Amino acid sequence: MYRKRKPHIGASPGTLAIPEGALPPSIRIMDYTPDRLDEQEMVAVSDLAAYLVSDSVTWIDVHGLGDEAVLRELAECFRLHSLLLEDVVHVPQRPKYETHEGHDLLITRMISQKEGGEIDWEQVSVIIGEHYVLTFQERAGDVLDPVRERIRRGKGPMRRSGPDYLAYAIVDTVIDAYYPVLERLGDHLEVVEEEVIANPSNATIGRIHRLKRELISFRRTIWPQRDAINALIRGDENHVTDPVRIYFRDSYDHCVQLMDVIESYREMAGGLLDIYLSSLSNRMNEIMKVLTILASIFIPLTFIAGIYGMNFDNMPELHAHYGYPLALLAMAFTAGG
Amino acid sequence: MYRKRKPHIGASPGTLAIPEGALPPSIRIMDYTPDRLDEQEMVAVSDLAAYLVSDSVTWIDVHGLGDEAVLRELAECFRLHSLLLEDVVHVPQRPKYETHEGHDLLITRMISQKEGGEIDWEQVSVIIGEHYVLTFQERAGDVLDPVRERIRRGKGPMRRSGPDYLAYAIVDTVIDAYYPVLERLGDHLEVVEEEVIANPSNATIGRIHRLKRELISFRRTIWPQRDAINALIRGDENHVTDPVRIYFRDSYDHCVQLMDVIESYREMAGGLLDIYLSSLSNRMNEIMKVLTILASIFIPLTFIAGIYGMNFDNMPELHAHYGYPLALLAMAFTAGG
Amino acid sequence: MYRKRKPHIGASPGTLAIPEGALPPSIRIMDYTPDRLDEQEMVAVSDLAAYLVSDSVTWIDVHGLGDEAVLRELAECFRLHSLLLEDVVHVPQRPKYETHEGHDLLITRMISQKEGGEIDWEQVSVIIGEHYVLTFQERAGDVLDPVRERIRRGKGPMRRSGPDYLAYAIVDTVIDAYYPVLERLGDHLEVVEEEVIANPSNATIGRIHRLKRELISFRRTIWPQRDAINALIRGDENHVTDPVRIYFRDSYDHCVQLMDVIESYREMAGGLLDIYLSSLSNRMNEIMKVLTILASIFIPLTFIAGIYGMNFDNMPELHAHYGYPLALLAMAFTAGG
Amino acid sequence: MYRKRKPHIGASPGTLAIPEGALPPSIRIMDYTPDRLDEQEMVAVSDLAAYLVSDSVTWIDVHGLGDEAVLRELAECFRLHSLLLEDVVHVPQRPKYETHEGHDLLITRMISQKEGGEIDWEQVSVIIGEHYVLTFQERAGDVLDPVRERIRRGKGPMRRSGPDYLAYAIVDTVIDAYYPVLERLGDHLEVVEEEVIANPSNATIGRIHRLKRELISFRRTIWPQRDAINALIRGDENHVTDPVRIYFRDSYDHCVQLMDVIESYREMAGGLLDIYLSSLSNRMNEIMKVLTILASIFIPLTFIAGIYGMNFDNMPELHAHYGYPLALLAMAFTAGG
Amino acid sequence: MYRKRKPHIGASPGTLAIPEGALPPSIRIMDYTPDRLDEQEMVAVSDLAAYLVSDSVTWIDVHGLGDEAVLRELAECFRLHSLLLEDVVHVPQRPKYETHEGHDLLITRMISQKEGGEIDWEQVSVIIGEHYVLTFQERAGDVLDPVRERIRRGKGPMRRSGPDYLAYAIVDTVIDAYYPVLERLGDHLEVVEEEVIANPSNATIGRIHRLKRELISFRRTIWPQRDAINALIRGDENHVTDPVRIYFRDSYDHCVQLMDVIESYREMAGGLLDIYLSSLSNRMNEIMKVLTILASIFIPLTFIAGIYGMNFDNMPELHAHYGYPLALLAMAFTAGG
Repeated sequence: MYRKRKPHIGASPGTLAIPEGALPPSIRIMDYTPDRLDEQEMVAVSDLAAYLVSDSVTWIDVHGLGDEAVLRELAECFRLHSLLLEDVVHVPQRPKYETHEGHDLLITRMISQKEGGEIDWEQVSVIIGEHYVLTFQERAGDVLDPVRERIRRGKGPMRRSGPDYLAYAIVDTVIDAYYPVLERLGDHLEVVEEEVIANPSNATIGRIHRLKRELISFRRTIWPQRDAINALIRGDENHVTDPVRIYFRDSYDHCVQLMDVIESYREMAGGLLDIYLSSLSNRMNEIMKVLTILASIFIPLTFIAGIYGMNFDNMPELHAHYGYPLALLAMAFTAGG
Repeated sequence: MYRKRKPHIGASPGTLAIPEGALPPSIRIMDYTPDRLDEQEMVAVSDLAAYLVSDSVTWIDVHGLGDEAVLRELAECFRLHSLLLEDVVHVPQRPKYETHEGHDLLITRMISQKEGGEIDWEQVSVIIGEHYVLTFQERAGDVLDPVRERIRRGKGPMRRSGPDYLAYAIVDTVIDAYYPVLERLGDHLEVVEEEVIANPSNATIGRIHRLKRELISFRRTIWPQRDAINALIRGDENHVTDPVRIYFRDSYDHCVQLMDVIESYREMAGGLLDIYLSSLSNRMNEIMKVLTILASIFIPLTFIAGIYGMNFDNMPELHAHYGYPLALLAMAFTAGG
Repeated sequence: MYRKRKPHIGASPGTLAIPEGALPPSIRIMDYTPDRLDEQEMVAVSDLAAYLVSDSVTWIDVHGLGDEAVLRELAECFRLHSLLLEDVVHVPQRPKYETHEGHDLLITRMISQKEGGEIDWEQVSVIIGEHYVLTFQERAGDVLDPVRERIRRGKGPMRRSGPDYLAYAIVDTVIDAYYPVLERLGDHLEVVEEEVIANPSNATIGRIHRLKRELISFRRTIWPQRDAINALIRGDENHVTDPVRIYFRDSYDHCVQLMDVIESYREMAGGLLDIYLSSLSNRMNEIMKVLTILASIFIPLTFIAGIYGMNFDNMPELHAHYGYPLALLAMAFTAGG
Repeated sequence: MYRKRKPHIGASPGTLAIPEGALPPSIRIMDYTPDRLDEQEMVAVSDLAAYLVSDSVTWIDVHGLGDEAVLRELAECFRLHSLLLEDVVHVPQRPKYETHEGHDLLITRMISQKEGGEIDWEQVSVIIGEHYVLTFQERAGDVLDPVRERIRRGKGPMRRSGPDYLAYAIVDTVIDAYYPVLERLGDHLEVVEEEVIANPSNATIGRIHRLKRELISFRRTIWPQRDAINALIRGDENHVTDPVRIYFRDSYDHCVQLMDVIESYREMAGGLLDIYLSSLSNRMNEIMKVLTILASIFIPLTFIAGIYGMNFDNMPELHAHYGYPLALLAMAFTAGG
Repeated sequence: MYRKRKPHIGASPGTLAIPEGALPPSIRIMDYTPDRLDEQEMVAVSDLAAYLVSDSVTWIDVHGLGDEAVLRELAECFRLHSLLLEDVVHVPQRPKYETHEGHDLLITRMISQKEGGEIDWEQVSVIIGEHYVLTFQERAGDVLDPVRERIRRGKGPMRRSGPDYLAYAIVDTVIDAYYPVLERLGDHLEVVEEEVIANPSNATIGRIHRLKRELISFRRTIWPQRDAINALIRGDENHVTDPVRIYFRDSYDHCVQLMDVIESYREMAGGLLDIYLSSLSNRMNEIMKVLTILASIFIPLTFIAGIYGMNFDNMPELHAHYGYPLALLAMAFTAGG
């Protein structure tokens, strides 16, 4: 569930509610031109002003949202709207794109999967200005190291392009990270599919349900992300140049592909449920068949035995010499019938 | 269900039908400039004219819809269209936004949850004029005290802004109040989910049904509210200034988030039903399995016992010394099989 | 089902097929200005020409569609297109709005519910001209008496307004009449809901099915009516003035509210079916549980009794003094187990 | 299923694949002005040129698609695009509307129902030129005789209007013919509905399935037909004049009505399935109840009988004088319980 | 599932990941004017420059994507954007249409069905330039031989038209190849339908599930292909001339037809599931009926036999002369009842 924006109902739109257990912000910058790269960690907010004036591209990367004073200082430095700051701090927010005066905001959600298969979401807020990209992340550790590496290596278009290309590189990497997680989900779907067909058990329905829940949450994330990127591409007064728009169009295509895959998975998961329910009915039929066959054989037999267990004085069959074997024979015939 | 507008079919559009048991209107005003605040309760309608002329922002807050004369006086004072007055009085109405000459109407629905978890809806009609905001509520008691407190404190943009910002603050607070109720609904959904998986009973289906009903009614309320706010944002000839439009855009985003959450809940509630039905089938299978196993063991045994209970004269087994233990052994073997 | 337009396949578009058993048309007029009212029944078509020339507003109300000659005379008098005349005569038609030269056509469907709860639909075709409103109804008796009363009383805006306001009053009253019928449907839904939860029987599914059918037919009627009114509001070259457009907007809102209610009812009716089906499964489970418990207790007991009913010579238990009570005790233990 | 357009994959768009068993084309013309009518059968293609030059309206009606040479000659005479010719010949095609240079194409599907209730579809391709209408049908025999009769009679607007009105008359008659077939389908639906409620059998599900299939195929035909007529109405550079557009609007309304009816039928057919499934469950419940009641009565009784059939030496009850009647009484009490 | 675009998360957009086991590219060209045809296999990239300058139409057909160097050489020669090259190499991609500077890209998916019925997809990327069409295929062997044959024969519009017509011919042939595969799927659907109605077995549900999966994957392919062709038709700044647009409109119609067929199949497959589930319930009912009838007959009989197997001293019936036959008669009557 997305987060309610305010510490309490009716709070003023300027109020921040620092998430519990949030780490203090740590600022890292990469400032580059085609020719040089200046990389620094643990920068103070007061040192940022210099970078904003220069023509070089600066990536200000903020990890941790745990100190209101630092965040407000940042907001003042970059002239961020109080609502924008709230969207950044009050994680998780629905992915969206907004233009503001002097910069654009793109809220994305970054995925990472731990060893045990547990999925972990983190909000990455990307603010694109004229000479800078400002990103906010909930905590240290992200999937963006390849982007940093590309800036360091200085090959490819990265160092020669503006902050819009850097923003693209970040968003594209965030989307790239969905693929392996979704692939594993697809593998899991196939495992469950085989289980449903070959050996459905009581736990299967729970597995299908969990799969569906994960697919729902995936779709709820990628759908607005797609819309946000589309709004960015179609926006005509933002900080994205036409050549980079082609790159964002590519990111958009990836979101569409992911949606397609998720929809297919959802339809398949729905089909699994049908198979599961019909397998339950089938198994019931099997059980009942066994019972019925058993009953059809033994109930008449027991009845015959009952007859000859009666104590009437005058039962000629009982005294016949071959009465017993004949009765057994009659039973065998009945059972055969 | 929304209310039919008229006291009887075909009544003239000017006719009012005061809701039964409605309290007489009580008018409260807050009149403020950046420098001063004038707050009064139980104001007479005749005293309002003075506030409308002045440049200060005035919030006229009407509680109770129980006196037609007062309402008509108010309508005349603010030049409200007779249809607008009906929408205000004939609660509940579907949330909507309309521009009228001289003012705009936004109908919202305020939620409040009592101790026992019972949800209570109340219509708040917000009329935005050039220097005033006029709100109508069904009864005393609302979630808007934080807004009043912010006006009194005089910090933040509230006192420096116009009536459009005040209207935003009201609407935003109304929407804020949805979050905790929806959160509790989400908690309830999880409780039911656990129940369905661990221990489904006869009452579970009723609980799922009630959950779904509440989600339907929630959606029916938030969906038109979202559309109404969107219409307000896109309206180009209303009393909302551009800086405040950004704030309303934020309220719109919140409605979209709420819709997202509700849709997810609905899909999950639908999934719970599938699990419930399959658990019923599963339990049936279990029961039938028990019955079948029992029958498979004892029916043949009883048959064997029946055979040796027959009274044929000539049954050699009966007279054999070890007949009885051998028969018991045969039974044990059969049961084992 | 809507009616095929022609007496036979491929008939010329001018051909009329008078509905079987249709009554001969009876024309009633109300001709009014703010100052005077002229009301007449059983007017001849030839007398209508005079009213069309005058500036006063004239409501020509035709009941009964049973005489082709009169209808054609009317069509000629008001210059009605032959297709329009067909739509008027070949009831029922789907509600729709069309502009024609000199007048606009709005086809609506009027509801009335008899004592026994039976719903009765009737087509009301409203033709709005420059100085007149011409309505066609299938038979005498309608819900429009309050409109006539308002004209007679002469209060409110009715007598001071043009034919567009009269048309609004008619359409609004037709829509007003849906509310009580839908309310009763809602009550019925609640009754069925209680029945499903408390005491589902064989007839319940039939009741749910009938409810759904009625909701479908309701939706099929209101949906196009909403579209028709919307087309009327958006039409820029028709006989509706801007102030009256606000009133029609209100009628549109009512249609939207009704659609909302119907959709909610449909979702609930769908949910009832799920509850019903699960209650069937539940009851089956109960039945099977009873059977299985019974079988679990008595089948082993009968088996024990069977053993000691065997006639082996050498069964020491049979001759033991406490054999019988011990056997009974064994049975009691088994049953307890 | 619609037909693949080409004799083999990748054939040139000019290639025709004459349908197997297609009859050779037979051309019939009706050439008329308000004053005279010239009707001829078995016209040669070479004679058509004269008609195209004259100002009279000419309906060239081609039955049978079995001779490529004649079809190509026709195409050359009327300057038909090779793709248009393919659409005409490669029946069935999806209904559609296309403007071409010098003429417009409207592909419709004509229905006819044989005595046995079997539905028969046939493609009617209508090409509207400046002075002519050219129709292609798969075989002789159609529902268009009333149109021919109207031309012959010379009354009504037919003879005074252009080829666009003729095209309307043809399309309208094709649509008219859907009504009786759909009505019969509705009657059939009601029969099945009664069967499901009163006396559902094993064959019922098959009947519901066939009904749904027919409704699907109906919808697949009428939906694109509606779109095609709408495209014709909105097309601003075609051979349809404004007065005739009103007539086509009427045809469009009929398609919308038919879609409405079909959708209602589909929802009802879906509801029948639910009733059927619940009736299966109900019947199962009935069967199980019978079994369980039977078992509850007789299993305990049989057990009691078993007890007194035991052969213990020391069973005092056996020797009591009233032992037997008391045992029977005990059984009667048990059964009563 | 569509392929992730990059060799690893966050790789630079220029990076290529050659698919495993991909064959080295082999280039084949067909260069033609109305008068002459120059066809060559195994052309080196360096030889292509000459063809690009000339006015003749050149089809450069690349099979195999296994050599990054060659692909990059080609990209440089045709000035392909690095993202375009990625889309070409990283198969499979979702079908799409994009305009680039100097050329347009249309990604399609080619189907082929092997003897055993196995469906095989292959990506065909079509790049349309001013004088050339450049196609990339994953491997040798395709369905495009008829197109090559048509170029060689030199009849029809092929040799007289530009590269846009050639692109159309390729796309049209790719779409043509869907028809027979879909027809076979339809045949398979009918087989399963008969099986479900006549003789549903445990494996049937698996067959229905596989059918649905194939239909899902078909739809996922054709849907975006339709959109891509539509975008191409509506694009106003691409290399497609108006006369060829008519041909592409025809391809679009074919995609729409295919979608229609697939949707019908999907609805039918969904209906099959309902029939299957109801047949399971039906069979269960049959089994239970047998069991119940059997039990109803024999349980009372066995009870009667049990009564007369009791060992009470005082049972007068036992000593009656006709006791036994009367008891048998009583049993026969009971069974009859």
